[in-house]
Amino acid sequence: MECHGSISHPENASKLKIRVLYADTDRMGVVYHSNYFRWFEAGRANYMRLRGTKYSSIEQNGVFLPIVEAHADYLKPAVYDDVLDVFAWISDIGRVQLKFSYLVSRDGKELVRGYTRHAAVNGEGKPVRLPAGIPEALAGPESASSDADGQTL
Amino acid sequence: MECHGSISHPENASKLKIRVLYADTDRMGVVYHSNYFRWFEAGRANYMRLRGTKYSSIEQNGVFLPIVEAHADYLKPAVYDDVLDVFAWISDIGRVQLKFSYLVSRDGKELVRGYTRHAAVNGEGKPVRLPAGIPEALAGPESASSDADGQTL
Amino acid sequence: MECHGSISHPENASKLKIRVLYADTDRMGVVYHSNYFRWFEAGRANYMRLRGTKYSSIEQNGVFLPIVEAHADYLKPAVYDDVLDVFAWISDIGRVQLKFSYLVSRDGKELVRGYTRHAAVNGEGKPVRLPAGIPEALAGPESASSDADGQTL
Amino acid sequence: MECHGSISHPENASKLKIRVLYADTDRMGVVYHSNYFRWFEAGRANYMRLRGTKYSSIEQNGVFLPIVEAHADYLKPAVYDDVLDVFAWISDIGRVQLKFSYLVSRDGKELVRGYTRHAAVNGEGKPVRLPAGIPEALAGPESASSDADGQTL
Repeated sequence: MECHGSISHPENASKLKIRVLYADTDRMGVVYHSNYFRWFEAGRANYMRLRGTKYSSIEQNGVFLPIVEAHADYLKPAVYDDVLDVFAWISDIGRVQLKFSYLVSRDGKELVRGYTRHAAVNGEGKPVRLPAGIPEALAGPESASSDADGQTL
Repeated sequence: MECHGSISHPENASKLKIRVLYADTDRMGVVYHSNYFRWFEAGRANYMRLRGTKYSSIEQNGVFLPIVEAHADYLKPAVYDDVLDVFAWISDIGRVQLKFSYLVSRDGKELVRGYTRHAAVNGEGKPVRLPAGIPEALAGPESASSDADGQTL
Repeated sequence: MECHGSISHPENASKLKIRVLYADTDRMGVVYHSNYFRWFEAGRANYMRLRGTKYSSIEQNGVFLPIVEAHADYLKPAVYDDVLDVFAWISDIGRVQLKFSYLVSRDGKELVRGYTRHAAVNGEGKPVRLPAGIPEALAGPESASSDADGQTL
Repeated sequence: MECHGSISHPENASKLKIRVLYADTDRMGVVYHSNYFRWFEAGRANYMRLRGTKYSSIEQNGVFLPIVEAHADYLKPAVYDDVLDVFAWISDIGRVQLKFSYLVSRDGKELVRGYTRHAAVNGEGKPVRLPAGIPEALAGPESASSDADGQTL
C-alpha cells in the first residue's frame, strides 16, 4: 500500500488505478461529477476482493449492500486520459451496515474525497446481519493477491 | 405525427422530445455517441406505450426483448441544452424478432439515424414467440393517449 | 407548484417529471445510485430555466458553476418505468457560491434527497462573482413559462 | 497478442482487460448494450497508445476523430464481475477517415463484435487529413510498452 506524502488515507486502503475516458468527460473538459461514484464502486469492489470477500459472493449468500447515502467533495478536476489512483477503505462497520471512504488522486495530489454508506438487506429489502466472518474479513488486511489480470471497469 | 420537409420517417413514427444534459456531453463539446442509444431506448418505449403495449407489460408476461444488434449513423452533432426530437418506428417485425429504427433531429434537421434489432426470449434466454397480439399492436397506429405527465428519461 | 402532504420541499421548488429507463437500472432491479445526480442536474437546469436564467446563458457570460460537493440520501428505490418528480430549489446562495437541494418522489412518497454545492469560476477556474442579477433571479419565483415542448433528459 | 482458438481477430489486435461493474448492468442482470461502446473507446485508445500515437496527442495537433458510424452485434451477454477481453484493431484507414473493429470476449468465447468509423476533422469540424505519420503508425505493430500501471476506464 503506497502512501504519498501529500495525501492521507489509512494504511489498509486498497488502491486501484483507472484511466479517464472521453466518455467520462463533459463539455467543461473535466470529468462529470457523478462518474466518480462509478469509480468509488470499482475501488470498493477491489477492496473487498483483496480481502477474499467478493461482493458477488456476498450476494450469492442472499445479502445485498445497497447504498443509503453517498457523498463526494471535489477538490480538483480530472481530465481526459488522466491515470488516477482510487483508494478505498472501510471507515465504519457494524452488524447491519458499513461505510466505505474513498480518495481519488493523481500523481499524489488529492482530487476527490467521498464516502458511501451501505445497509445489509436480504432479497426482499429487509435489514439483515452481514454474513458471519464478513465484518472481520473486511476490517482486516489484504489477504488475496491482487487480481492482476482482471483490471478494472 | 409531425413530418418536417427536410427529414424523413414513416407516418406512424412516434415522437419524443428530450433535452441534452451536461452529463450527455463530452470534452469535444458535443453529445458522446453512445448516449443516443439511451435516447433510442426512450423513443422505443414511447412508441410501445403509445400503442398500449408497454415494454414492462411484455416482461411481466415473461418475454424479454434483448438487443442483438445496434447501429447508429452520426450526421451532425447535438450540443448542450438542445431540445431534440426522437422519432421511433418498427422497421421489421416477425414472430420471434423485431427491429426498431430511429431518427434524432433538431429543428427539422437530421442529426442521427439508427436501429436496434431485438430477439424475443424467455427468462432463461431461450427464443420464444412474441406474445399474441403484440406484433399486431406494434405494427398498428397509436392507440393510447400520450402520457403527457410522464415525460422521459 | 404542487405540494403533497407527505413530502416536504419549499414553496418555490421547481418540479420536473422524468421516467426511469432500462439504462438507469442495475442488476438489483433498481435505479443505480449515481443516476440520481443526473436527474439532479436536470432538475437544477429546469429550476434556472423557469427563472429566466438558463445555465447555458450564464456560461455564455464566462461564468461556470462546477460542483464542489454532492450528496444524496436514498430512502426508497425507484424501478424501471417509474415516473418520478424531481423537485429542485436553492437552499443557499452567496456571491461566489450556491447550493441546490433536491427531492425525488413517486406518487407523493419521498425516494431520494440530496444537494449539490457549486462554486462560481471563470474559464480558468478562478473564483468569480455570480453575474449581476443572477442571485436575485435565482432566489425569486418562477418567471418564465414552463418549456412545455422541451421535456427533459 | 494472444489468440484463442475459438475467437478470431487480426494478429495485431490490441487487448485490454476490463471488469464489469454493477453500474454497467441493468435489471435483466446483464450489461446494458450501450456500455460496450464505452469499452470500445477504451480498447481503441489502448490500441493507439501501444503504437505511440495517443489520441490526446492527435487532438493536441488540432485533429479530432469524431465517430460517424457505430455498430455492435451482441452474441452472448456479460454479467456482473466478469473479466472481459476487449480486442481492438484498425480495419480500414484512409487519409481522412479510419475504422476500428472490436471483439469483446470472456474466457475465449466471443460476446460482442462491433466497429466504429471516424472522420478526421479540425476544431471547426471541417474534414482534414490525418497528421503525417499517423496512418503508418496506426497500421503498424505495437511499439510502446503496455502502460502497465495505467489500467483502464
